[in-house]
Amino acid sequence: MPTDHMPLAASPLPPEPEPVAPAAGADPALGGISDRAATRQAREQTVGQRPGTLTVREGSLVPRLFLISYSETFFEEKEYPDYDALRAYFQAHPELRHWIDVRGYNNLPLMERLMRDFDLHPLQMEDVLGDYQRAKVELFDDNRLFMVSRMTDFTSLLEIDDDQLSLFTGPNYVISFQDDYDDCLETVRLRLRSGFSQIKRKPALYLAYALTDVVLDHYYPTMAAIGDYIESLEERIFKNGSDRRILNRILHVKKDIVRFRRLVYPEREKIAEILRMPEEVIPEEMKIYFKDCYDHAIQAMDLAESYRESISSLMDLYLSDQSNRMNEVMKVLTIISSIFIPLSFVVGLYGMNFQREAPDGSINYLNMPELYQPWGYPILLGILALIVTGQMYYFYRKGWLSSR
Amino acid sequence: MPTDHMPLAASPLPPEPEPVAPAAGADPALGGISDRAATRQAREQTVGQRPGTLTVREGSLVPRLFLISYSETFFEEKEYPDYDALRAYFQAHPELRHWIDVRGYNNLPLMERLMRDFDLHPLQMEDVLGDYQRAKVELFDDNRLFMVSRMTDFTSLLEIDDDQLSLFTGPNYVISFQDDYDDCLETVRLRLRSGFSQIKRKPALYLAYALTDVVLDHYYPTMAAIGDYIESLEERIFKNGSDRRILNRILHVKKDIVRFRRLVYPEREKIAEILRMPEEVIPEEMKIYFKDCYDHAIQAMDLAESYRESISSLMDLYLSDQSNRMNEVMKVLTIISSIFIPLSFVVGLYGMNFQREAPDGSINYLNMPELYQPWGYPILLGILALIVTGQMYYFYRKGWLSSR
Amino acid sequence: MPTDHMPLAASPLPPEPEPVAPAAGADPALGGISDRAATRQAREQTVGQRPGTLTVREGSLVPRLFLISYSETFFEEKEYPDYDALRAYFQAHPELRHWIDVRGYNNLPLMERLMRDFDLHPLQMEDVLGDYQRAKVELFDDNRLFMVSRMTDFTSLLEIDDDQLSLFTGPNYVISFQDDYDDCLETVRLRLRSGFSQIKRKPALYLAYALTDVVLDHYYPTMAAIGDYIESLEERIFKNGSDRRILNRILHVKKDIVRFRRLVYPEREKIAEILRMPEEVIPEEMKIYFKDCYDHAIQAMDLAESYRESISSLMDLYLSDQSNRMNEVMKVLTIISSIFIPLSFVVGLYGMNFQREAPDGSINYLNMPELYQPWGYPILLGILALIVTGQMYYFYRKGWLSSR
Amino acid sequence: MPTDHMPLAASPLPPEPEPVAPAAGADPALGGISDRAATRQAREQTVGQRPGTLTVREGSLVPRLFLISYSETFFEEKEYPDYDALRAYFQAHPELRHWIDVRGYNNLPLMERLMRDFDLHPLQMEDVLGDYQRAKVELFDDNRLFMVSRMTDFTSLLEIDDDQLSLFTGPNYVISFQDDYDDCLETVRLRLRSGFSQIKRKPALYLAYALTDVVLDHYYPTMAAIGDYIESLEERIFKNGSDRRILNRILHVKKDIVRFRRLVYPEREKIAEILRMPEEVIPEEMKIYFKDCYDHAIQAMDLAESYRESISSLMDLYLSDQSNRMNEVMKVLTIISSIFIPLSFVVGLYGMNFQREAPDGSINYLNMPELYQPWGYPILLGILALIVTGQMYYFYRKGWLSSR
Amino acid sequence: MPTDHMPLAASPLPPEPEPVAPAAGADPALGGISDRAATRQAREQTVGQRPGTLTVREGSLVPRLFLISYSETFFEEKEYPDYDALRAYFQAHPELRHWIDVRGYNNLPLMERLMRDFDLHPLQMEDVLGDYQRAKVELFDDNRLFMVSRMTDFTSLLEIDDDQLSLFTGPNYVISFQDDYDDCLETVRLRLRSGFSQIKRKPALYLAYALTDVVLDHYYPTMAAIGDYIESLEERIFKNGSDRRILNRILHVKKDIVRFRRLVYPEREKIAEILRMPEEVIPEEMKIYFKDCYDHAIQAMDLAESYRESISSLMDLYLSDQSNRMNEVMKVLTIISSIFIPLSFVVGLYGMNFQREAPDGSINYLNMPELYQPWGYPILLGILALIVTGQMYYFYRKGWLSSR
Repeated sequence: MPTDHMPLAASPLPPEPEPVAPAAGADPALGGISDRAATRQAREQTVGQRPGTLTVREGSLVPRLFLISYSETFFEEKEYPDYDALRAYFQAHPELRHWIDVRGYNNLPLMERLMRDFDLHPLQMEDVLGDYQRAKVELFDDNRLFMVSRMTDFTSLLEIDDDQLSLFTGPNYVISFQDDYDDCLETVRLRLRSGFSQIKRKPALYLAYALTDVVLDHYYPTMAAIGDYIESLEERIFKNGSDRRILNRILHVKKDIVRFRRLVYPEREKIAEILRMPEEVIPEEMKIYFKDCYDHAIQAMDLAESYRESISSLMDLYLSDQSNRMNEVMKVLTIISSIFIPLSFVVGLYGMNFQREAPDGSINYLNMPELYQPWGYPILLGILALIVTGQMYYFYRKGWLSSR
Repeated sequence: MPTDHMPLAASPLPPEPEPVAPAAGADPALGGISDRAATRQAREQTVGQRPGTLTVREGSLVPRLFLISYSETFFEEKEYPDYDALRAYFQAHPELRHWIDVRGYNNLPLMERLMRDFDLHPLQMEDVLGDYQRAKVELFDDNRLFMVSRMTDFTSLLEIDDDQLSLFTGPNYVISFQDDYDDCLETVRLRLRSGFSQIKRKPALYLAYALTDVVLDHYYPTMAAIGDYIESLEERIFKNGSDRRILNRILHVKKDIVRFRRLVYPEREKIAEILRMPEEVIPEEMKIYFKDCYDHAIQAMDLAESYRESISSLMDLYLSDQSNRMNEVMKVLTIISSIFIPLSFVVGLYGMNFQREAPDGSINYLNMPELYQPWGYPILLGILALIVTGQMYYFYRKGWLSSR
Repeated sequence: MPTDHMPLAASPLPPEPEPVAPAAGADPALGGISDRAATRQAREQTVGQRPGTLTVREGSLVPRLFLISYSETFFEEKEYPDYDALRAYFQAHPELRHWIDVRGYNNLPLMERLMRDFDLHPLQMEDVLGDYQRAKVELFDDNRLFMVSRMTDFTSLLEIDDDQLSLFTGPNYVISFQDDYDDCLETVRLRLRSGFSQIKRKPALYLAYALTDVVLDHYYPTMAAIGDYIESLEERIFKNGSDRRILNRILHVKKDIVRFRRLVYPEREKIAEILRMPEEVIPEEMKIYFKDCYDHAIQAMDLAESYRESISSLMDLYLSDQSNRMNEVMKVLTIISSIFIPLSFVVGLYGMNFQREAPDGSINYLNMPELYQPWGYPILLGILALIVTGQMYYFYRKGWLSSR
Repeated sequence: MPTDHMPLAASPLPPEPEPVAPAAGADPALGGISDRAATRQAREQTVGQRPGTLTVREGSLVPRLFLISYSETFFEEKEYPDYDALRAYFQAHPELRHWIDVRGYNNLPLMERLMRDFDLHPLQMEDVLGDYQRAKVELFDDNRLFMVSRMTDFTSLLEIDDDQLSLFTGPNYVISFQDDYDDCLETVRLRLRSGFSQIKRKPALYLAYALTDVVLDHYYPTMAAIGDYIESLEERIFKNGSDRRILNRILHVKKDIVRFRRLVYPEREKIAEILRMPEEVIPEEMKIYFKDCYDHAIQAMDLAESYRESISSLMDLYLSDQSNRMNEVMKVLTIISSIFIPLSFVVGLYGMNFQREAPDGSINYLNMPELYQPWGYPILLGILALIVTGQMYYFYRKGWLSSR
Repeated sequence: MPTDHMPLAASPLPPEPEPVAPAAGADPALGGISDRAATRQAREQTVGQRPGTLTVREGSLVPRLFLISYSETFFEEKEYPDYDALRAYFQAHPELRHWIDVRGYNNLPLMERLMRDFDLHPLQMEDVLGDYQRAKVELFDDNRLFMVSRMTDFTSLLEIDDDQLSLFTGPNYVISFQDDYDDCLETVRLRLRSGFSQIKRKPALYLAYALTDVVLDHYYPTMAAIGDYIESLEERIFKNGSDRRILNRILHVKKDIVRFRRLVYPEREKIAEILRMPEEVIPEEMKIYFKDCYDHAIQAMDLAESYRESISSLMDLYLSDQSNRMNEVMKVLTIISSIFIPLSFVVGLYGMNFQREAPDGSINYLNMPELYQPWGYPILLGILALIVTGQMYYFYRKGWLSSR
């Protein structure tokens, strides 16, 4: 019953993978290790390894296996604790289309069996289990596809996660791999469960398309949140001015956008490559659907680009606000100094000890005669007031007294 | 009478769309919701939906149907409150060319009937009704076009709206969809109404071209307004200097230009794709018209690019003006401080209480003998004046006394 | 006698243009209206017009018609006040090559006759008469060219004008259109007038090439002037420092360069397109000439790009000069304040009224005993001098006393 | 026994290299000369030399020769002090695959023998021995490859070395050249030594692939270190603020990233070129492996690009921190000056010598009557306190008293 | 004897150039005119000239003619004062390969004879004699090449000259034109003179390659000098800080790099075009040599690009240093002002004339009782010291007292 593309258990293994020691310490309880650290660790471990060597990333989940089997009139969905049972059912029903949904990688022997049973290339399997793989598509066995998508999981802006979804298509099945129990594919399952769906009437490739499309659709809420956040930052700077935390946030969003572009660009290339594939692999009828995906990817890229421009405007705004604040500080200093330093000089002048009457009693009428004018003091006060008024007028004319 | 490209009502529907629940709350009375909010809402609703599922955006208008039928010698224009009447007339007159002008989307069953009657693909219809679609063209059924344009509606610079115009061409008809009762296509209608027009003598594709061209033509007033605005901002900075509102406006125009580029670039790609289409779809005779459109699109892009440069120059000007102002503030501070602080020291010096006659009556001739010179005070005043003059000359030489 | 590519008067008009109302107010006396305003006005008028509708821009000149007829051994040059006479001569001499030189557009019926007589496409004619058209080339009627060049007219740097030159080639003629009585093509005429010229021995296409090349040649003086100006600005900043007018000029030159690039880039594309044309249109023998044009266009672009870099360096220089000036202002302030503020404190100290002898006659020897030291005052002056010297030395070591 | 691709000793030498004088002073003891200086020196020496002239870079190592011979069932690894012995073994065992591992170049006659024996082109050999060669691949003799990789040797961030690895492939051998005794290829050797490896079962080209891949794999630790360093710099600026050393480090990392991009881009081009090679050179079965390399190279480029963005953000952060610090300095100055300068004026006012009682005993009640109010002094102190309080409140409202 | 590609004297001249007046004032004694001015002058003279008109640039040298004739076994090198003698020898020895080395242009009739004798196109000859021509290659007469290279002549960094080298290849000869008696080609001559050289055994095209390669090789010392200079500037800023001259130099080097890129990019394009030429023009055997040139050109471009990045880092460093210096100036001002302004206030306070004993003898005990405390003065001094200490501690904590 197995199709000739899927030599199951008993078949000889042409590119038999090399025996692999189970990755030590691959204990899901160690999930507390931060993702980044794990990534780096894994990367460093694999330097110098055989290409095509399977290992499981530390901290990955114990696999759960789901099988959705459907035809235009049939639907069944079941979790199999045991791979053999799943395979038996799958082999027994070649007339149905199947979605084999593998969540969690942490069982190397199982992964190797899947690889052998479905005739996957060790390098592809390595991409599945590896720590980061850009979106891509590969054609193998002449008409099967290996596709990688990156699913964004938008919970909060400051924590954009992207998980990998790997798909293998076959004549009547799709196998999906992901290292997460919850995913953004639930809506596709809902559509399958609903009595009457396009997916059921189309070949298995349509399911692969639907999964790719739903991943792309999930980019938009993240993008929208980034867009809103940029706008809120802008308003905030206009209202409250900028402080260091604002800069912090601008740089953070910038990082998010850079990461987003790194997600979206390969996605577009992937779909463009699918569209270039020959009629035998992607029938004309399916191309119109992937063309639609392509439009979505382009639109996401467009958004990412315009957000980049927004961030650069925001940065300009921030820097200009900084310089405005400095300007204002300087103006206060200048106004106060300019007014009071001359005044201080004038009053200092009349604090000098040139005295009309020398200790020897002689009178020097040239010594600060102002001090001895009857109206000297009031006149001086008047002069001081005049200086202040003049300067205030000067500053007012310069527009330095207005708030900005 | 229907051509074989337009299997009307009775024909079987090969890619029959799935039954769709009418979008809840699609009440045109809710038009008060801002466009952006609606967009986002819609976007979020559609995440995870079946691709190819028709829904109508909240707040869209109740459709009005117009039919313009013409031949070289005939012209009729009529609004049909009822789709069946329109279809009957359309089917009865295959010898005429028709422009079916649908304004407003808020009637899902009608949209679905149009889709079936004119054999439109559900994904295309989804693009028509969806919330934002870049300009694009798609060839379907071997010789029909689906084109999306974005119409700018220039009322005020700070409110550049862009509405979507979707066109489907057929052998003897064009169907246009837009969610607006007023549009920028009126001039095409005027030309049709006028007794004698190129459009009447050309195939239906020429009408599609005329509509695309008029949309492109409407980009220019917006561009011109942006150009004028940039110039007025520049003059303003030179005359009155910059303040924060200027920055605000610069960043706003920058956003407009970024948006404009996002409009124009796909438009150019769209027309380039039309020009690459084979002779059977776009006859050589029509290509010269689309080549003209292409020139217009390129010219619009050129303008957008040079406005970008202008904006960056404007930003440079703004920043330099800011720094100039700071410079000026500093100069005032420096001049006044530099003049009066030394003077204050001098007068402070003679305010010291070193007295010639100690309380015990002894005389110390070393204690500030200056105070006891007959011409001491006038000489001191002279020295002070000299210091001021010297400094003023120094600052004059440095050019700090000139306005800038 | 007319060739089959030039169906004169009596021939049926396949794409007969629509009747056109003469553009109101197209009075050359209104030439005082600034170019830009006219452009915009024209642009706004044409929005929504029939594509391919001829109108004449307001303020354009009354046409003057020149005919240069030549063969290897023959040369005649004449201004015809009357188009019919010109046409008669042209039709009577198919054995000669002709350059029909139309200067000024303001005669719509004449323009339409030219269009019909020489079988020009209405869209091309619209490009000729329209307000701005990028350089481009179009192949029509299988072997005729429609070329647009933009002629720069360098009088002063601050007023770079670019006028449009439109060329149509035919088997034995070139028609040129421009809206200016004086042009940069005079040198080509001079060469034709001189007894013995390449042009006379080559086909009419060579004339088109010669005209295109002379337009390109006129870009260089403008470029050279821009280059000189940039250098003079640079020297000026180094010598006299920067002021606001310098910034003004930098931004102005930047605009010029941006405009120049907008001229040159399409020129290069145009010639590249000519070079890609098939042997039947552009014979191999002619391609070497256009290849030469191409080199010139590339070189002009190169220059424009390196001027852009120069402008950005100039801007850096300007900004750095601004910041230098600020630095210098700050240094003067700091030096003077740092020296005199402490001195003022010291002399203020001895201006306090702690007096040895209280009003009640009691003596407090702790109250400022310094005032009663025999050498108190000279010692104090010494201390003040010491402070000044110390600070001057500190500033000297910091390099703040040197000019920069 | 030699294959026809490898005409050994006795064969005539078609492109016989010109006799070369041994490079003077090529003494490995001079290893102390810094790499850069050596590079430049070498570069200058070769200016004007015959292209294709072999010379050995000064300071290169005395060659050591290693031979790994293997088949699916056989493995031998040996260092040969003598090239003739190696060649004899190699010629005696055409049934095995061989990796001839040459470490160190400093023996020109040996290099020339290798070139002749393995039919290498003099220009290729020059690339091997030269001082810097970008990653590249060349197809020669129709089905042999010459590949250059650049190996990064990550020890410390501030010392990223890249050494050149040159590979020549033949039907049953790979020759590798490097000027280093230690390398990053050890893991490949380990895999060969292990009993059971893919490499042993594949053709010699697979070994070339494995070597190329291991070089690419070694880029990641360097990249990871750069990424970590950027993050640590960012945290540092946020915590401790920026100082000059931070700038130093930012610029240093920027240089590293620029260098890294210069390494990675050619690597990607190299592999893309391999992928475009015809089936006869790179069999389909091998292409999947090189496609995997390609993915790695793209991913490395992606990382490099996002690090560039991070560095530019870091630079923004640094500059903004600088300006923040200036702002803070200015605020302290402004607050203190603004408070105390007016106070100084007030107290200066009452230090004036307008005295009620003139020396002649006359009383002027207008002269500073404040001094003679019973509560004058306490009231004045109160006024001073009020001024201080008012200003403090003003600054507090401006937010200048908060830390930032 | 002349080959059919070289119709000498007696042959008819198909594209006979137009008669040319000798360029007036082309006196080599006028060599003092600066290069740039000459360039511009020449450029302006040629505006409007016949394309393909030969003129000699003012200030160019009187030609010297050299002929190197060689075969695998023969070598002769001679300067011919007379062109006819050279031509006679050349015609007499078709069995040899010849390098006709023309240095200096200032003999128009000679240039025209060369053009006719070697069947060069007037436009090519115009490129040879013209003032600036980017590197390029042109294929003419089906298998001859016209190549332009730009030779850098590195003497000092501030004076990078680039002279033009024009090469024409023929079946058994290469003609080189340059307007300089000394050149960078001497090394090629040395190799030819040496008994045994590749060049002698290869066709004439190999000589053209050798000349092109030696020109490329001469780019490296210039590049290396630029690289060293950038590094020295960087070190200088770190050690001595930046001043205006540094900025001057940075901008100068930036200009050099921009110029260098303008040299190198066309060089790469030129060689890429050679590599794309068909087998008949560039035999496979020669392509490997030009591929090597291509690598060199790419590497030079790489270097230029990384120098650009270095310059931008240097500019960042400079600007940051400027801002650092400003910061330091501000800190000194702030520290001194903040310490002494409050002290001045305090001492000013006790300089007020609130006196305990009024002139009328009444005692007001509220008037500055501090003055009458027995320990008043010492306590005040203590308070002042405390203020200073507190502020110093505050500034120390802020890190303002450390050098940076």
